[in-house]
Amino acid sequence: MKAEIISIGTELLLGQTINTNASFLANELQSLGIDSYFQTTVGDNTERIHEVLELALQRADIIITTGGLGPTPDDLTHEAVYSFFNTKPSLDKKILKQIENKFHLRGYKKMPKMNKKQAYKSKNAQWISNKLGTANGIIWKIRGQRSEIRDQKKKISPLTSHLSPLILTFPGVPKEMYQMWNDTAKPYLKKISTKNVIFSTTLKFTGIGESALAEKINKFFNLKNPTVAPYASLGEVKIRITAKAKTNKIANKLVAPVVKSILKKTKKYFFGINDETLEELLAKALIRKKKTISIAESCTGGFLSKRLTDIPGSSKYIKSNVITYSNEAKNRLLCIPNEILNKYGAVSPEIATLMAKGIKKLSGCDVGISITGIAGPSGGSKEKPIGLVYFGLAKGNKIKTQKMLFGSNSSRDEVRFLATQFALNWLRKEI
Amino acid sequence: MKAEIISIGTELLLGQTINTNASFLANELQSLGIDSYFQTTVGDNTERIHEVLELALQRADIIITTGGLGPTPDDLTHEAVYSFFNTKPSLDKKILKQIENKFHLRGYKKMPKMNKKQAYKSKNAQWISNKLGTANGIIWKIRGQRSEIRDQKKKISPLTSHLSPLILTFPGVPKEMYQMWNDTAKPYLKKISTKNVIFSTTLKFTGIGESALAEKINKFFNLKNPTVAPYASLGEVKIRITAKAKTNKIANKLVAPVVKSILKKTKKYFFGINDETLEELLAKALIRKKKTISIAESCTGGFLSKRLTDIPGSSKYIKSNVITYSNEAKNRLLCIPNEILNKYGAVSPEIATLMAKGIKKLSGCDVGISITGIAGPSGGSKEKPIGLVYFGLAKGNKIKTQKMLFGSNSSRDEVRFLATQFALNWLRKEI
Repeated sequence: MKAEIISIGTELLLGQTINTNASFLANELQSLGIDSYFQTTVGDNTERIHEVLELALQRADIIITTGGLGPTPDDLTHEAVYSFFNTKPSLDKKILKQIENKFHLRGYKKMPKMNKKQAYKSKNAQWISNKLGTANGIIWKIRGQRSEIRDQKKKISPLTSHLSPLILTFPGVPKEMYQMWNDTAKPYLKKISTKNVIFSTTLKFTGIGESALAEKINKFFNLKNPTVAPYASLGEVKIRITAKAKTNKIANKLVAPVVKSILKKTKKYFFGINDETLEELLAKALIRKKKTISIAESCTGGFLSKRLTDIPGSSKYIKSNVITYSNEAKNRLLCIPNEILNKYGAVSPEIATLMAKGIKKLSGCDVGISITGIAGPSGGSKEKPIGLVYFGLAKGNKIKTQKMLFGSNSSRDEVRFLATQFALNWLRKEI
Repeated sequence: MKAEIISIGTELLLGQTINTNASFLANELQSLGIDSYFQTTVGDNTERIHEVLELALQRADIIITTGGLGPTPDDLTHEAVYSFFNTKPSLDKKILKQIENKFHLRGYKKMPKMNKKQAYKSKNAQWISNKLGTANGIIWKIRGQRSEIRDQKKKISPLTSHLSPLILTFPGVPKEMYQMWNDTAKPYLKKISTKNVIFSTTLKFTGIGESALAEKINKFFNLKNPTVAPYASLGEVKIRITAKAKTNKIANKLVAPVVKSILKKTKKYFFGINDETLEELLAKALIRKKKTISIAESCTGGFLSKRLTDIPGSSKYIKSNVITYSNEAKNRLLCIPNEILNKYGAVSPEIATLMAKGIKKLSGCDVGISITGIAGPSGGSKEKPIGLVYFGLAKGNKIKTQKMLFGSNSSRDEVRFLATQFALNWLRKEI
């Protein structure tokens, strides 16, 4: 069984929205063992939506669309799907009532007129209910109509399978789409998916570049099942090990020994598996060891604190953090003497150390961490270039410091992110 | 002239990477007046890359690929392009030397062997130089070969134009791609693009939902040139006004009066144009008025401080901020009496007010802002549900407070983001 994802929306073609829906759906399809070889993006245009549907029907059994279910006139996905299959949708009064009620609950006296069109559906399609918005989707198994399509449109080459094509539509708002996928579409597809399972494990690394890591595990890239592939993002390299098999258990048996062999050669840089993040792993370690942590940030301006409080339950280990951006703040809040600030400058191992010590004392936490550096785009010098960052760590009576230089090509955002990434990884090892 | 974007990478089909490159390129093409009606994503698979190339050549004159230029065996975009056009690439010794040098500069003794393949190129193609990595792309104007392709592959329908097809390839790493696009590809395409300009202005709103905003400007959605379309993201609604014309100046003349009429009906919620962000606008206002600001955050844990220090030059208006997550921190750092904390609870207008007052005093800044609320996923009650957030603002001798309830459907991340969004907008109006 093959699926194809069609993202509909002129805003995607104009580059005004990043398509996170396609990656969400792709990931979900993979976990269901449904292959997906192509994704297409097309604008809010009936003719071109028809072109894309035609092609997708040749390549896939399941077509999943996102976008174009809104109330405004440019939203025309359902209209395009119905006209492609020569079907006239009719008004579903029950759904219209539901949509009207949603507006009442939001405090509107009546539903805006334009929302009425969201209640039209072909008789044979099922609604995918949208709990968070008014744009319901559909699941439509187009029984018996497939050969008709083929006859009508001479151009179409032989279909990939004898299954009736299945069409699922979702709105473009990610949150609404996720809810609808999880509540309705996923259980539905789980039932009908019978093929091999695709199982993949991703190993995550930090503190090493992609080529250097790949070089260490070169020989694994020739494997066929599982396959091994590296990919890099800012401050992280991932190695994905993917197996196909009848069941998850068998696939896992193919993946596990390869994971083990790869880790043997790369352990030093490894930090987590799949979706695990550095902040999550650090949070778990802090909770497990019943430690509290406090942060004094300069150049990262609250970014490290933000990442550590992204995690639910962070009040267990975060009590009070400070952003001491100016020298005066370093002096007043962290009690760093002005003469020392003047002597070494704010970006120095001495000040990083005193910031860590200062915040630990101020907060009464078990650990104090500090970040002070030059994020750019200005403020660099020959001695202290952009990307130079010092870190301090105070724990018990011990104080440590680290220096990093995050490349002269790095932007302000990158230096700030890489600094928080380094701090999280350092803390994870030291806690 | 039409362009088509092809994103190549199995990680995209597996949903492990979000495709930001396509939106970047789409945006750039639009600004060059080059139409783009389709985007396709395909895996690292020669046969399927060929299929996608074949189709794209029927629909577009310019094919832009991203991804698959790395050194590892799964990277095979160039190989697939060359084999599609029956061309054998040859080793470019000068480029090989350059790649070797890049490794030496990074401290490697020698280049990993697998990188050699990145120095192969068809004779007639030009390199697109990659300053940040080793994966150079190509610009290839395939002269005279187009009719041959058509003859060879019987299936292909009439081509869209008589131009020689142009192929541009880029690596998948966004930063490298951006640099190569800006330095080489963009100037090249600017020269050959002769068609209409597509000009678009986006108006940004906050504090109102998409339907409610659309309802106010209903009649504009029927316009043909310019077109008007709304789209929503978390905490923001955008209205895009897009015109096609011979020159930017003429297009602008079509757009300007529509912008004016729309703003007349929506001014209350409008905050910025195009890429302008709330933090940027606030930063500009603070600098213009020579005001400094200090932040005391509880539930947002540094997120507001992070957003305000994302902006270069933020040390002009940010001196010292605090994250007072625990009651003890609110007491110690902001001098809020424990009996008051116990009486009202940390999430209350009283505490929001005292936090704002406290941080203003502690920092010595002109303005103090505070955020205290319940971000979830736990910690809510009937009286103080998840999503309830209080804000305090101290300026001169005046103190104000605001209460917001960010919907019971909102996740922790969303409540936190919406709270910073509200605070930035409030500050923007009050500064």
